[in-house]
Amino acid sequence: MANTNPARGMRDFLPVQVRRREYVIGIIKEVYESYGFEPLETPAVENLETLTGKYGEEGNQLIYKILKRGEHEKTGEADLALRYDLTVPLARVVANHKNDLPKFFKRYQIQPVWRADRPARGRFREFYQCDVDAIGSISVVIEAELSLAVTEILRKLGFEDFTIRLNHREILRDLLLVSSIGETRQTDALIAIDKLDKIGFDGVLKEFEQRGISQNSGKKVLNFLEGIAKLQNNNEIYDELEKFIGRDAFGANELRQIIEISKNSHIKLDPSLARGLSYYTGAIFEIDVGKEIGSLGGGGRYDRLIGMFGKEQIPACGFSLGLERILVVMEERGMFPAELKNTSADVLITIWNGETISESLELAMDLRARGLRVLVYPEADKLGKQFKYAAQIGVPFVCVLGEDEIKNNTVALKNMQTGEQQTIPRENVSEKIKAPKI
Amino acid sequence: MANTNPARGMRDFLPVQVRRREYVIGIIKEVYESYGFEPLETPAVENLETLTGKYGEEGNQLIYKILKRGEHEKTGEADLALRYDLTVPLARVVANHKNDLPKFFKRYQIQPVWRADRPARGRFREFYQCDVDAIGSISVVIEAELSLAVTEILRKLGFEDFTIRLNHREILRDLLLVSSIGETRQTDALIAIDKLDKIGFDGVLKEFEQRGISQNSGKKVLNFLEGIAKLQNNNEIYDELEKFIGRDAFGANELRQIIEISKNSHIKLDPSLARGLSYYTGAIFEIDVGKEIGSLGGGGRYDRLIGMFGKEQIPACGFSLGLERILVVMEERGMFPAELKNTSADVLITIWNGETISESLELAMDLRARGLRVLVYPEADKLGKQFKYAAQIGVPFVCVLGEDEIKNNTVALKNMQTGEQQTIPRENVSEKIKAPKI
Repeated sequence: MANTNPARGMRDFLPVQVRRREYVIGIIKEVYESYGFEPLETPAVENLETLTGKYGEEGNQLIYKILKRGEHEKTGEADLALRYDLTVPLARVVANHKNDLPKFFKRYQIQPVWRADRPARGRFREFYQCDVDAIGSISVVIEAELSLAVTEILRKLGFEDFTIRLNHREILRDLLLVSSIGETRQTDALIAIDKLDKIGFDGVLKEFEQRGISQNSGKKVLNFLEGIAKLQNNNEIYDELEKFIGRDAFGANELRQIIEISKNSHIKLDPSLARGLSYYTGAIFEIDVGKEIGSLGGGGRYDRLIGMFGKEQIPACGFSLGLERILVVMEERGMFPAELKNTSADVLITIWNGETISESLELAMDLRARGLRVLVYPEADKLGKQFKYAAQIGVPFVCVLGEDEIKNNTVALKNMQTGEQQTIPRENVSEKIKAPKI
Repeated sequence: MANTNPARGMRDFLPVQVRRREYVIGIIKEVYESYGFEPLETPAVENLETLTGKYGEEGNQLIYKILKRGEHEKTGEADLALRYDLTVPLARVVANHKNDLPKFFKRYQIQPVWRADRPARGRFREFYQCDVDAIGSISVVIEAELSLAVTEILRKLGFEDFTIRLNHREILRDLLLVSSIGETRQTDALIAIDKLDKIGFDGVLKEFEQRGISQNSGKKVLNFLEGIAKLQNNNEIYDELEKFIGRDAFGANELRQIIEISKNSHIKLDPSLARGLSYYTGAIFEIDVGKEIGSLGGGGRYDRLIGMFGKEQIPACGFSLGLERILVVMEERGMFPAELKNTSADVLITIWNGETISESLELAMDLRARGLRVLVYPEADKLGKQFKYAAQIGVPFVCVLGEDEIKNNTVALKNMQTGEQQTIPRENVSEKIKAPKI
């Protein structure tokens, strides 16, 4: 027998799964659009040269490469590749359409990307990214609006107890400088600090040692971060930060402004937040919904990346939500609305016999025109079989249209939850289905 | 300078284009869901073996193949491929999830497919298909509901003068048999008849000759088709058909039933419709919106295909709408609603100076909570510059929140279309924007 599984690390989405994905994507889009972000879509396939060299050595190996067509196919040469993230295509589009785009281009993009990674729990080879980026301004209004938008999305999805951890690359730089860790060692130091959650104080200290960072310096910065981790209040954290790195530091000032103007945005200052990606230049964010889960997304300011395909650099700041992880957490916590579980149809209309098909189809058209989702059982099977099918697929109502009902312009309507069946005038059917309790 | 174009034959979609695509897709989904079709999504990438041998020799060459990863990359071996259509993945999913799917599985799937075809006007290497299929029933209720759904989609998109051409493979078979063209010549004959629109009577006759079909037989069937093409009324066509192929022919009977129960569905009987694909077994359809354009989609019954990955055959009937061609026609005919042209934001809020940012963001949050899409100008630029930007991006309203307005709890609201500016209480702003003429 032929293999009928999807390719390894990829997934088929049956209707209930598609509806859950669309529910989450719908909320994300709605909120981003309410902030004036506009949709962008790019092809799944990019020229290979567009992607190579953009994701580091490890990334290069995870890119899916597509064979040249025609006679070249045999040589094994690749000229195309599957999209690996949404940031490089954005930079390409910005360079390509510079004159068609507004000065402050606010775009969101919700599309799949592909990585030839080893599949694991929650890690897939095809997965969706939900990116939002504002291009063209260095103002902290951007950071504030991104935090507010992400806060609103999480609230609308039903998350209550979450924080947006906020830090700034310049604060990290200052913390390290004050601890006598110079510029040349800072990238190494940040890679170690990024693991603080996972490997703890001693683990990071050990990694500092391996990377040639002195234990004194290491202890100084880690002691500060450990002390500050116990504080809950942003102002207290800010005060401690000021004591440690001094007044009027650029990064600390920006964060203070961001917090001041982003009221109710669940922001928590976290000077230990490092974020893996090297291209951030300013504020950095990460969403925290519980220690056991890891982040649902993150982002930050990257003022020297978006111009990679053009002549000039353009400031940018963005956020990426991990759709797959959001879905896993919502599934585990039972956060999906109940109506996403059942079939999407509101009612099934039975067929009495071969001669009454037209009547059933007409009733279906009438109910659809009144906004209902209507299934017609396709065959003039025994009525019992049609009801059994309705029960199997979980449709909440069944309409029977027999010869008497047709003659009297009525419908026998059965509520499949309560079992109650009533014969009612045809024009009352849609109300009854929409508001079964009235 | 780096090449910033998308890969050949692929396209970036800027916001206005995405909105138009989503507008059309939204209507297609809404109508299909109202008929109880459920969404299915499959991965962009399939195992190569899943696709090879399914699309004929020409298709095989147009499949994008993906290199094996790791050390195999150098050998040029491919193990994966990009989705080529939505029917093969459907058949795979049906075989794989047989026990999870309802007996009558009605699914729609709107996703891109990739073909390494030569790009041409309206022909792309990445393009969307909008497929809808009902699986598990041989009843003509399926054909009727598909015709009704497609009719409703076209009407909702704004098409008025369209027809769904309807024919039946068994009618074609009977027409050819009556014209003394035997089973062994029929595939050849249908390929020629499929070109009748393009190459005309004499062209088809010539092709018949090349394919070894007698001129007498050829003339007989073509004369019949030419005669019938002048008739407008389905009943007249049906009567002529009956005279030519006899009473109670299976195909003709099915079509009569379909037409009878699909009231107002724009169906026109067309015994010359052949459809290229060889897998159809019953009714076949094609959408016609004008001679100059070609079809916007088509479909038919294929009762011996969906079981290609399983042990048993499962009857099926479906329709595929060509999104790209629908978009081209709607663009040419100016059928998109005007509001899809402008920026999606309803209003831009200016920033007076560095101290009033919070006030502007709060007003933005308030208007968003009232259902508006709100852009905040990100910087405390000169007001003239902010207005100029608003005019450039085409946002219909601008809110100014200066020190006086903040003090008085008012807003200066400018209608960018009329140029009118009014200072109004803050709580009236959203009404004014939603219903500017009241």
